Amino acid sequence: MEMAFVLDLSAAKGLLEQFASVRSKTEQLAEGLSDADASVQSMPDASPTKWHLAHTTWFFETFVLRTGVAGYVPFDHRYHYLFNSYYEAEGPRLARHLRGLLTRPSLAEIMQYRSHVTQAIKVHFACLPPSLLELIELGCHHEQQHQELLQTDILHLFGSNPLLPAWHPGDMSASGNSSEPHELRWVTGRCGPVEIGHDGPGFAFDCETPRHTTWLSPHALSSRLVTNAQWRAFVDAGGYRDPDLWLSDGWAWVKQDHIEAPLYWQRAADGHWGSQFGPRGTVGLAEHAPVRHVSYYEADAFARWAGARLPTEAEWEAAAALLDPLKGPFLESVAPGIPEDDTSDAPLRQMYGELWQWTASAYLPYPGFRPAAGAVGEYNGKFMSGQFVLRGGSCATPRGHVRPSYRNFFYPHQRWQFTGVRLARNL
Amino acid sequence: MEMAFVLDLSAAKGLLEQFASVRSKTEQLAEGLSDADASVQSMPDASPTKWHLAHTTWFFETFVLRTGVAGYVPFDHRYHYLFNSYYEAEGPRLARHLRGLLTRPSLAEIMQYRSHVTQAIKVHFACLPPSLLELIELGCHHEQQHQELLQTDILHLFGSNPLLPAWHPGDMSASGNSSEPHELRWVTGRCGPVEIGHDGPGFAFDCETPRHTTWLSPHALSSRLVTNAQWRAFVDAGGYRDPDLWLSDGWAWVKQDHIEAPLYWQRAADGHWGSQFGPRGTVGLAEHAPVRHVSYYEADAFARWAGARLPTEAEWEAAAALLDPLKGPFLESVAPGIPEDDTSDAPLRQMYGELWQWTASAYLPYPGFRPAAGAVGEYNGKFMSGQFVLRGGSCATPRGHVRPSYRNFFYPHQRWQFTGVRLARNL
Amino acid sequence: MEMAFVLDLSAAKGLLEQFASVRSKTEQLAEGLSDADASVQSMPDASPTKWHLAHTTWFFETFVLRTGVAGYVPFDHRYHYLFNSYYEAEGPRLARHLRGLLTRPSLAEIMQYRSHVTQAIKVHFACLPPSLLELIELGCHHEQQHQELLQTDILHLFGSNPLLPAWHPGDMSASGNSSEPHELRWVTGRCGPVEIGHDGPGFAFDCETPRHTTWLSPHALSSRLVTNAQWRAFVDAGGYRDPDLWLSDGWAWVKQDHIEAPLYWQRAADGHWGSQFGPRGTVGLAEHAPVRHVSYYEADAFARWAGARLPTEAEWEAAAALLDPLKGPFLESVAPGIPEDDTSDAPLRQMYGELWQWTASAYLPYPGFRPAAGAVGEYNGKFMSGQFVLRGGSCATPRGHVRPSYRNFFYPHQRWQFTGVRLARNL
Amino acid sequence: MEMAFVLDLSAAKGLLEQFASVRSKTEQLAEGLSDADASVQSMPDASPTKWHLAHTTWFFETFVLRTGVAGYVPFDHRYHYLFNSYYEAEGPRLARHLRGLLTRPSLAEIMQYRSHVTQAIKVHFACLPPSLLELIELGCHHEQQHQELLQTDILHLFGSNPLLPAWHPGDMSASGNSSEPHELRWVTGRCGPVEIGHDGPGFAFDCETPRHTTWLSPHALSSRLVTNAQWRAFVDAGGYRDPDLWLSDGWAWVKQDHIEAPLYWQRAADGHWGSQFGPRGTVGLAEHAPVRHVSYYEADAFARWAGARLPTEAEWEAAAALLDPLKGPFLESVAPGIPEDDTSDAPLRQMYGELWQWTASAYLPYPGFRPAAGAVGEYNGKFMSGQFVLRGGSCATPRGHVRPSYRNFFYPHQRWQFTGVRLARNL
Repeated sequence: MEMAFVLDLSAAKGLLEQFASVRSKTEQLAEGLSDADASVQSMPDASPTKWHLAHTTWFFETFVLRTGVAGYVPFDHRYHYLFNSYYEAEGPRLARHLRGLLTRPSLAEIMQYRSHVTQAIKVHFACLPPSLLELIELGCHHEQQHQELLQTDILHLFGSNPLLPAWHPGDMSASGNSSEPHELRWVTGRCGPVEIGHDGPGFAFDCETPRHTTWLSPHALSSRLVTNAQWRAFVDAGGYRDPDLWLSDGWAWVKQDHIEAPLYWQRAADGHWGSQFGPRGTVGLAEHAPVRHVSYYEADAFARWAGARLPTEAEWEAAAALLDPLKGPFLESVAPGIPEDDTSDAPLRQMYGELWQWTASAYLPYPGFRPAAGAVGEYNGKFMSGQFVLRGGSCATPRGHVRPSYRNFFYPHQRWQFTGVRLARNL
Repeated sequence: MEMAFVLDLSAAKGLLEQFASVRSKTEQLAEGLSDADASVQSMPDASPTKWHLAHTTWFFETFVLRTGVAGYVPFDHRYHYLFNSYYEAEGPRLARHLRGLLTRPSLAEIMQYRSHVTQAIKVHFACLPPSLLELIELGCHHEQQHQELLQTDILHLFGSNPLLPAWHPGDMSASGNSSEPHELRWVTGRCGPVEIGHDGPGFAFDCETPRHTTWLSPHALSSRLVTNAQWRAFVDAGGYRDPDLWLSDGWAWVKQDHIEAPLYWQRAADGHWGSQFGPRGTVGLAEHAPVRHVSYYEADAFARWAGARLPTEAEWEAAAALLDPLKGPFLESVAPGIPEDDTSDAPLRQMYGELWQWTASAYLPYPGFRPAAGAVGEYNGKFMSGQFVLRGGSCATPRGHVRPSYRNFFYPHQRWQFTGVRLARNL
Repeated sequence: MEMAFVLDLSAAKGLLEQFASVRSKTEQLAEGLSDADASVQSMPDASPTKWHLAHTTWFFETFVLRTGVAGYVPFDHRYHYLFNSYYEAEGPRLARHLRGLLTRPSLAEIMQYRSHVTQAIKVHFACLPPSLLELIELGCHHEQQHQELLQTDILHLFGSNPLLPAWHPGDMSASGNSSEPHELRWVTGRCGPVEIGHDGPGFAFDCETPRHTTWLSPHALSSRLVTNAQWRAFVDAGGYRDPDLWLSDGWAWVKQDHIEAPLYWQRAADGHWGSQFGPRGTVGLAEHAPVRHVSYYEADAFARWAGARLPTEAEWEAAAALLDPLKGPFLESVAPGIPEDDTSDAPLRQMYGELWQWTASAYLPYPGFRPAAGAVGEYNGKFMSGQFVLRGGSCATPRGHVRPSYRNFFYPHQRWQFTGVRLARNL
Repeated sequence: MEMAFVLDLSAAKGLLEQFASVRSKTEQLAEGLSDADASVQSMPDASPTKWHLAHTTWFFETFVLRTGVAGYVPFDHRYHYLFNSYYEAEGPRLARHLRGLLTRPSLAEIMQYRSHVTQAIKVHFACLPPSLLELIELGCHHEQQHQELLQTDILHLFGSNPLLPAWHPGDMSASGNSSEPHELRWVTGRCGPVEIGHDGPGFAFDCETPRHTTWLSPHALSSRLVTNAQWRAFVDAGGYRDPDLWLSDGWAWVKQDHIEAPLYWQRAADGHWGSQFGPRGTVGLAEHAPVRHVSYYEADAFARWAGARLPTEAEWEAAAALLDPLKGPFLESVAPGIPEDDTSDAPLRQMYGELWQWTASAYLPYPGFRPAAGAVGEYNGKFMSGQFVLRGGSCATPRGHVRPSYRNFFYPHQRWQFTGVRLARNL
C-alpha cells in the first residue's frame, strides 16, 4: 500500500462516513438470510455469510482497536482465532474448510460483535493517528471485497440446494437481462509504451502499484462482452468436447469435473440449455445478456474457438483508464480519448460493473512492487502464483469500489464469481 | 422383519400412544438447537438435526401415507427426494455428504412438516390395515434410532467447534460420572449350544431373526465396562504407539489419523489427558466412569494389551438375555440364572443403557435370515459387510428401545457413537 | 501355530526335500519373465515378482539363519529393510506401494540372494533345533502362498498392459476351458454340531486352530461352481445395474469403479462380453468353465439374484473334510461320507484346486485362537477385520498346499485372485 | 514455429548429421540402464526411459514417415497408441500415469524400433519435402528435450530407491562441485524498451516467437547462482518454517509435503544437512556449488529472505543475449555489451548450461504468438497456464540445444529438474 495519506478535517469526516456506510451496507446484504443460511459453507472456496460479517469486523478490531486504542476490551477474545483469515502474522486460525462448523456464535451474536466494533471505531475515530486511519480506509475496501464474496458465496450455497431457492425473488438489478443487443465491434487499443498502475490521490491496494511503463503491441478489444447466445453457439458446436480448443490443464478440468456449460446453466427437459440459476432463482437464458460464471479455461477456449484471444491486463487498463467507472455498464461508456491510431469509433461497453473480465495476464507483482508493511502486507502479494487477473468489477461490486487499476484475481478453474469474457485480437 | 402381527384394539391403542410419544420425544431433543445448529453437517458420517427430523417423517409419509391413504397430499413433493436416506427402491436422493447444504427448508418448516405428517397418521390411524400398522411400529423404532444419532451428530458438531459449546450445560444424566468404583470380576458365561436371536411377541428388526442355535466355547465376561482410569493406563503404557497390539487396518488408521486417545479426550496444558468433551461441554475425566467414544480398533487393541479379548455377540446375548434392559446400567443387574458351570457370583453391570459395547462379531446375516419385504427390506441386510456388532444400548438410546437381541453395527474406525468396551476371555 | 513337532530322521529328511522343492518351484514360476516384468508393481495390492522372490528368501534368512546360525553373514544387510513385508517386530520397512521402485537389485542379484540363502539352509539344516525346523516348514508354506500371489500379480500386470501379452501362450492347465457341462445339483450339508479347524498331525497356520465345535443349520451346497454362462445371464439381466441386489458397500464400489463384469472380461466390437484375459492371453469365454475373478460383492449379488446365498466357511469345511484335496477339481470328488440326512447323491465337484470360493464368513479368530509366538505371530491374526474367508484353493495354488481347514482371506472388493462362486441355500 | 526454412544442399546435409547425432546420443544416455531401470515410472510427472526412447521415435514415425513416405510400414501399429504423449489430434493414448506398466515391449524391442525408424528416415531423407525436413529438425530438438528428461527421471527413480544407486559412479561432469567460490556481485541490466524473442535464422520453438518489444524497469542481476552454502544459511535461519517468506500456495505445499530442504538433500546422523543424492550417488554438499533441485516456491522464498527477487524472463534474456551459450557455465561468460548504464563490470557467470534458472514470469504467450500448424501445434501453447518460465539450460541440457530465447517451463512445486536460482533486484 503506497498511499500518500495526509488527511485534513474534511477528508477525515469523509472517511468516517464511508466507514459507516460500508458497515451498514454489509448488514443490508445479509438481510433475509436465516441463521442457517449464514452458517453453512457450500465448498472450501466459499465462506459462510456469518464468517464474512465477522471477519471484516475482526479486521478493524485487530488492526485498529487492539493496536491503537489503549484499554480496548475485545468483544470476545476467542474471536481473534475464529475469524482470522490468512494472516500468519496474527497467529493460528481456524482452517478455511472448517468455517462452516461454527453454528455458534449465532448470527445475532455476530451482529452484536459488529455493533460493538463499529461503535468503538466511531467513538475513538477522532483520536486515531493517520496510520490507523489508513488502516480504516483499507478496512473499508477490504469489507467491500467481502460484500461481493458474501453474495457469490450465498449464490453458490443456494445453487447447491436442490430446491434452488431465490435469494431476491423480485430483484432485477443483478440480471443483465434487459441488455439491448449490440453488434460486436473491434476497438483499436493504444500501443507502444503506456503507463499502468495506480498513482493518484485516491485509495488503491498495494498490488496496483507502482505505476510503471509497459509496452503494448497493436491490438483491438471487442466492444462488448460475449453473450449467452454466442456461448450457446460454442456449446452447440461441441466446444466442450474438442480438446484442441483447450489448455492442457483446462481440458483435464473439463474431463474431471464433467464440465459442459457455464456454472448455473440448466438444461430443459429436452436437453436444451434454457435457463440459469441466479439471485432471483431460475430464469430463462437471456440471449443478449453477457455470459457469466465461466472459468478462465472456458474463457480462453471460447476465445480460441472464436479466432480471438483474451486481452492482457495492460491492454484492458489502457483502454479503461479513459472511462468513468461510476457510469456503470449500461451507459454509453464510449472511450473518447483513444488515440488517433484507433480505426474504429465504436464505444467500449460494459467495461465496469457488469462482470469481472478474465485477462490473459497471470497475477504477478508489478516492477518495483513492495508489499504494505506489517500484517496487512499479507493482503495481496502472497497470492502471486497460479492465478489470473480479472478487471472491471461486476454487478455485485459495490459502487465506487472499482477503478481502472483494480486487479482482482482467481484461479483459472474458479467460476462462482460474476465472471465474463471480453475478447481481444492482434492487429 | 418377521413379525407376527395381529393387533387387537388395545394393542392398536398402545401403538398410537407409542407413535405420539416417539414423535414428541424427537422434537424435545431438538429443543435448544438453533436453525444453524440443526442445518450443518460436521462430517459425511453425520447428518444435520433437520435431516433427522425430516427423514423420520419422510419414512411415515412414504411408507404409510403415500402408500396407504387414498387422497393423501404430500406436504411438499420435493421432500420425497430430499429426505430419502438410502432406499434405492424409492428413487434418487440427495447424496449423503450434501445433506448439510439444505439451509432451506428451515427448521420451522421442517417442524410444520412433522406436524402435518403426525396429524395425518393420527387421523387415518383407525382405518389403516395391519400391514401399515406394522410399518408404523417399524417407523417408531426407526425414529428412535435417529433420536440417538441426532444426539451423537450434534455432539460431533459441537465437538468440532473450537468454542466447544455445551449442549446441556446442567445435564448430569449422560455423564456416567457418578459411577461408583467396582472391582472388575470375571463372570462365567454359558457354553455349548445356546439359542440367540429374537423370537418373542414384541418388535424386533429383521436382522435379529431368526432365533437359532449357536455353540459357545467356555468363556467369561468382565463384570463391568473398561474405565477411563484403565484406558489412561493403556495410553500411558504406549498403547497407541505399539503396532503389536493392533490389527493391521487399525494400525494404519492410527497412523493416518494421528490417533492418540479416545475421541473427545483433551490434553491439559501439561500434556496430560485430563478432560473430555461431552453434552455438558468439557468436564474432567472421571476415573471410574466407563471409557467412551472408542473405535473397534481401539477396543480390540486394549483387549489384547489387557490379555483379554472382546466378547462375541452370542456370548453377550446369552448373558444379557437373563437381565432386564429397563433396569438400566446402574442397578444391580445381576445375572441370576447363569447355569451351574458359572464359577463366579459377581453381578454383570452396565449391560444396558450405558454404552454400546463392541463385540468381536462381524455384522452378518443369521442362518436363515430373510430381509423384510418391500423397500423397508433395505433397512438392515444391505449393510452386512465390513461392520462389527455392538450390543446393549447407550445413555442416548431411548428407554425401551433396546433388547437382548438388538444388533447395532458400525465400521471399525467409527467412534462418534457412545461406544465402550466390555472384555471377555477364554476359559 | 499350534503344531505338535517332534521330527524324527525321516520327517526331517522330508522337510529338507520339501524345502528344496518349494524353492525350486518358485524359481520355475519366474522363468520367462524379464527383469522389467519382475520389477514393476501394477497396483498397491500387488507386488513385483522380484519382491516375492526376495521376501520369501528374507523369511528364511530372518527367522532361521540370522536367529539360529551363529556366524551367518547376511547376503546384503540392506535387504533386511527392503524385503520385510509387514512384520512390525522386525523393524522399519519399505512402504508397500513403493515396492515397484526397486529396479536395483536386479533379478539376477535376487536370484543370487535366493541361492545364497537356500544353500545356507541346506548346509546348516542338520544342526537346527526343532523350533527352527518348524519355522522352515512354516517358511515353505509361506513361500507357496507367494507362489500363488506371484502368478496373480503378474497376471494383473500383463492385464494392465494395453498389449495384453500372454504369459504362457500354450498352457492349457490354468484355463478350465475343458470343463464338461455339469448340471447344478443341491447337495445337503451336515447340520447340528460339527467340528471344524485343524487338529491333525500335518501342518496348519495358526488361524486354522483350534479345532472347535460350531453349529450348522439345515442347508445345501451347489454341486459345482457358477459358470461363465450363468454369469453372463446375470450381466444380461442387468445385475450390475440393480442396486437391490447389492450390499451397500458393494453398490458404492460398482458405481465408483464402473464395474460391469468380472475382472479381465472383454467386450467384442459389438459390445458383447466374449472373451477374457488370462495366463494364455485373451481367450474366448468358455460357457461351462467356472466364472473367475469376481469380488465378494459380486459373488454376494449374484447369489441374491439367483435366490441363493454363499456358504459359510463352516458349511464348506464340513462338506470338504470328506474329500481329498489332492484329487483336484476335475476328478469325481464325490463326498462319500455325507451323513444320512443327505437327500441328494450328487457329487460335490470343484471343491479343491479350481478357484478360491468366497464364503459368507468374515475372517475372524476361532474360539480359543492364539497367535503363534514371536514375529511370525503377526502372520495371520493381525488381518482379522474387514476381510472374508475363501476356501478350496485355485489352479494357481501349489499342489499339496491346500487342505480342508485352510482359510484364505481377502477384502470384499478384491478380485485379482483366482476367485469363484459356490452357492448355498437354506433348507 | 515461425521458421524460415529454405534448405540448400549443405543445410540438408547438416540436418541429417544432426539427426544421426541426436538419435545416437539418446541411446548413449540409456547405456548402463537395465530393462527394469528403463521400465519403471517413479512418479506421474516422470516417464520411464523406455518411454522416452520410444516416444521420440514415435514423433518421427508419426509426423514424418506415416505422413510423408508412401508405403511406409509402421514397426508395430500398436505403438501409435502406446507412445503418443499428449497429442490429442493423434487420437487416444495411454494415460500418463500408466506408462510404467509397459514391461513389454522390452528395452531391446524399443531399441529395434528406434533402429527401424532411424534407418527409414535416413533412407528417405533425400526425397522429403521441406515441410517434413522442418519436422525432422523439430523432432531433433524434441528429442533433445527428452534427453534431459530421461536423465532427471532416472535420477528421480534412483533417488526413490532406498539403496540410492549411483548412475554414473565416476562421472564428475554433472556435479558442479569443482566450482570456484565467486563473490556475488550485482550486474546492472538494460532498461527501457528491449526486444526479446527469437528472430534469427536458426531453429526455435513456436513459443519463443515472435520477437517483440517489452519494457524493462531499472534492475540488476546477481553475477552467479545461489550456492549450497547460502541455501544452508536459509535453512538454518528457519526459512522453511516462516510463513511470511512464502507465497500462500508455496506454504501450503511446504506443510503438505513436509518440505525442509532441496530435493535430494540428505541429513547426516546428527541431523545436519551434509550430502545430496545425484548422478554419482550420494556426495557431500559442495559449499560453492550452486544449489539445485529447488522449486519456484523455494526460489521465491529464498529471494524474499535475501531481500531480493527473481528476475523476469525478459530481464534474463536481455542480459543473456550478449553471451554465447556454447561457452558453458564455467568459462568467463562476461557480458561484454551491456550498455553504458551498467554500473558494474562484474561478469555474469553460470548463465548457460549450469542449472535452469527460475524466473518470475508465468509461462504465457508472447504478443502475437501463433502456435505451429497441425498436431505439432499442441507442442507448447497448450501448457500456458499455471507454470513458470526457466531459462539457461542445465548440465543435462544437450550442448547446442539452449539459446538466449529458450523458454523452459514447469509448475511452481516441481523440482526434480536441474533447477537453480539467480537473484535480481530493483534499482
